[in-house]
Amino acid sequence: MSERVYLDWNATTPLRPEARAAMEATFDCVGNPSSVHAEGRAARYLVEQAREQVANLLGAEPRNLIFTSGGTEANVLALSPRLSLGTDKAPRDRLLISAIEHPSVRAGGRFPSESIEDVPVSSSGIVDLAALQKRLDALRATEKGVRPLVALMHANNETGVVQAVADAAEMVHAAGGLLHVDAVQSAGKIACDIGRLGADTLAVSAHKLGGPKGVGALVKRSEALHIDDPMFKGGGQERGSRGGTENVIGIAGFGAAAEAAAKALAPSARRMAELRDRLETMLKAVSPDAVIFGADLERLPNTTMFAVPGIKAETALIALDLAGVAVSSGSACSSGKVAGSPVLAAMNVAAALAVGAVRVSLGSATVDRDIDIFINAWRNLVAGLSKGRREVAA
Amino acid sequence: MSERVYLDWNATTPLRPEARAAMEATFDCVGNPSSVHAEGRAARYLVEQAREQVANLLGAEPRNLIFTSGGTEANVLALSPRLSLGTDKAPRDRLLISAIEHPSVRAGGRFPSESIEDVPVSSSGIVDLAALQKRLDALRATEKGVRPLVALMHANNETGVVQAVADAAEMVHAAGGLLHVDAVQSAGKIACDIGRLGADTLAVSAHKLGGPKGVGALVKRSEALHIDDPMFKGGGQERGSRGGTENVIGIAGFGAAAEAAAKALAPSARRMAELRDRLETMLKAVSPDAVIFGADLERLPNTTMFAVPGIKAETALIALDLAGVAVSSGSACSSGKVAGSPVLAAMNVAAALAVGAVRVSLGSATVDRDIDIFINAWRNLVAGLSKGRREVAA
Repeated sequence: MSERVYLDWNATTPLRPEARAAMEATFDCVGNPSSVHAEGRAARYLVEQAREQVANLLGAEPRNLIFTSGGTEANVLALSPRLSLGTDKAPRDRLLISAIEHPSVRAGGRFPSESIEDVPVSSSGIVDLAALQKRLDALRATEKGVRPLVALMHANNETGVVQAVADAAEMVHAAGGLLHVDAVQSAGKIACDIGRLGADTLAVSAHKLGGPKGVGALVKRSEALHIDDPMFKGGGQERGSRGGTENVIGIAGFGAAAEAAAKALAPSARRMAELRDRLETMLKAVSPDAVIFGADLERLPNTTMFAVPGIKAETALIALDLAGVAVSSGSACSSGKVAGSPVLAAMNVAAALAVGAVRVSLGSATVDRDIDIFINAWRNLVAGLSKGRREVAA
Repeated sequence: MSERVYLDWNATTPLRPEARAAMEATFDCVGNPSSVHAEGRAARYLVEQAREQVANLLGAEPRNLIFTSGGTEANVLALSPRLSLGTDKAPRDRLLISAIEHPSVRAGGRFPSESIEDVPVSSSGIVDLAALQKRLDALRATEKGVRPLVALMHANNETGVVQAVADAAEMVHAAGGLLHVDAVQSAGKIACDIGRLGADTLAVSAHKLGGPKGVGALVKRSEALHIDDPMFKGGGQERGSRGGTENVIGIAGFGAAAEAAAKALAPSARRMAELRDRLETMLKAVSPDAVIFGADLERLPNTTMFAVPGIKAETALIALDLAGVAVSSGSACSSGKVAGSPVLAAMNVAAALAVGAVRVSLGSATVDRDIDIFINAWRNLVAGLSKGRREVAA
């Protein structure tokens, strides 16, 4: 696979060298972090060091970070009617979810389905905050004492569109609600500070920022926020919020990756945006009718989602894969499915165009040459298809 | 730490060389197992290979294995009122839990607390099957149509006592119930075949058998068993039973460790038992009044839990740790807590004796010399304490 070009970093990233080194160094760590002997204390130290590293990336206090098995678990952990603030232990009775959230958020966590409502999204892919405000007002007017939890992602996994999280936070808090932010795609790519975002809880995943798959975290804005119904009880790990022996090797890799991502954040984002803009310019030269979703909005610097009328993503992905280029038709976890992108459907993109949606996502190892190879493969694909059409027409 | 002797393998094990090699080999696996391109398919292959390796250890079909983040998650996943068999989707309405289960089982999983009952344990540490039979009969007689789920561990984490799981399975099935078995401590140490045990579901953890921490599995006896309320929805991974991107590196390590454990099972068990018996003989020579819990019962070959009247475990653990020997006073996840062993409490062991309970657990790297060092450290401890007593008395 050495000749291949990997442009599916939003699905998962290669391990950063720092993460690999940290994991290798942890192979010899024998103890259980809950054990009191020297071996246990050594393992505990590694976990707590990583907790600091990840918390730093997110502007959080280490004690407010709960390690999980990934972004999905972090989302489900946060989306609970029993997410409480301070001494106020009355349950959250309504969950408002934006229409373009990741499936693990769309599923509603621990809320009963009858308590879940959608927040619509504009055709450009940005969540409709006016509609959110209207709904919060209506809830307040008609159902006194209703206590909403709102879920809004920081950046969309498919289009890369960055959402107006801080504005949403202000609205939600004014309405007596709490805000959960899925920052799985944004953390490590753009600034993602829980305080500046105004999020109450924030979900992140190691493998989207150069750490290993199978580790994530839920971060809380303050210690006063508490999940009163942890999913995994028992051993009392993670201050009672998440039982089970810690994934020490994975957590060490997560910490190192988070630290490396934080260090490189601004220059890396600039470099990504340059590569992405170059890619889009070259793409438009080959396929002038390409539609780039969310092109006019603030987007993750590494993400392009586009469609060219008449070119099906399924066909394109297979041809590109054979040509040695890995891209995707949406999120990895839905790309195995027959259904189209739920994100584009929520944006009211015509089905005929949506079936052509290809996501190209770049990362720290991506270089100009990778873009050239992709564009070349795309050019061949387009040429092959139009040749096929001419032959059919002849 | 090269001079230290690690005798706390029931808390967690060092990585087997095979697991380490498999994890290192997986560092370069870039893809997300849900992606359809070559990188994704390569990651999928590694996950499915590991699924076969772990399923083989447990006598299960690979398609009936669900990877989780550990034994705790596997236990919580299985302990659901909505664990169904075939087309019969009526909820399980009663959970019977043995009194010596791991805290993650004792917490009752997804059952409401009012549906949970205890099954008592004898003073030797074996679950009282006559009491279980009586309770199952009573439930049948008084509450027609009650559908119990019973949780009984294969081997106890503290005493190592092996439970009569197959007999319990027969009882439970005759009563129209299902049986969940926590095999976290037994898998890889003694034969643990889901079919022979008669378990409907079986929970295992990688880091107890030479794999990494943070990976486990729930295994089902048949495909007809289904968890109708997965905790993590979303991406549809693990055939819809457990969403979230797979811990590919950890799973690869789990698979390799399971394969290595399966290969070495019988000779390793014999070797452990010899070391353990030697340890107990030498211990009795130093402390003739030592009480070895469950000594007359079938136990895990690697586990000794004992107490010597007048010697507190807390004192002993600190002294042994300073002498370079890591042992435990019970399970790692409760060893940080002030409360005594819940297992010994359930066995009605007098509190004065229970505070002295020390668990020594061996593993594949343990050799005669480690036992000698432990016994020597124990002898010094006993001598120091009796010298202290003589001085106080003088």
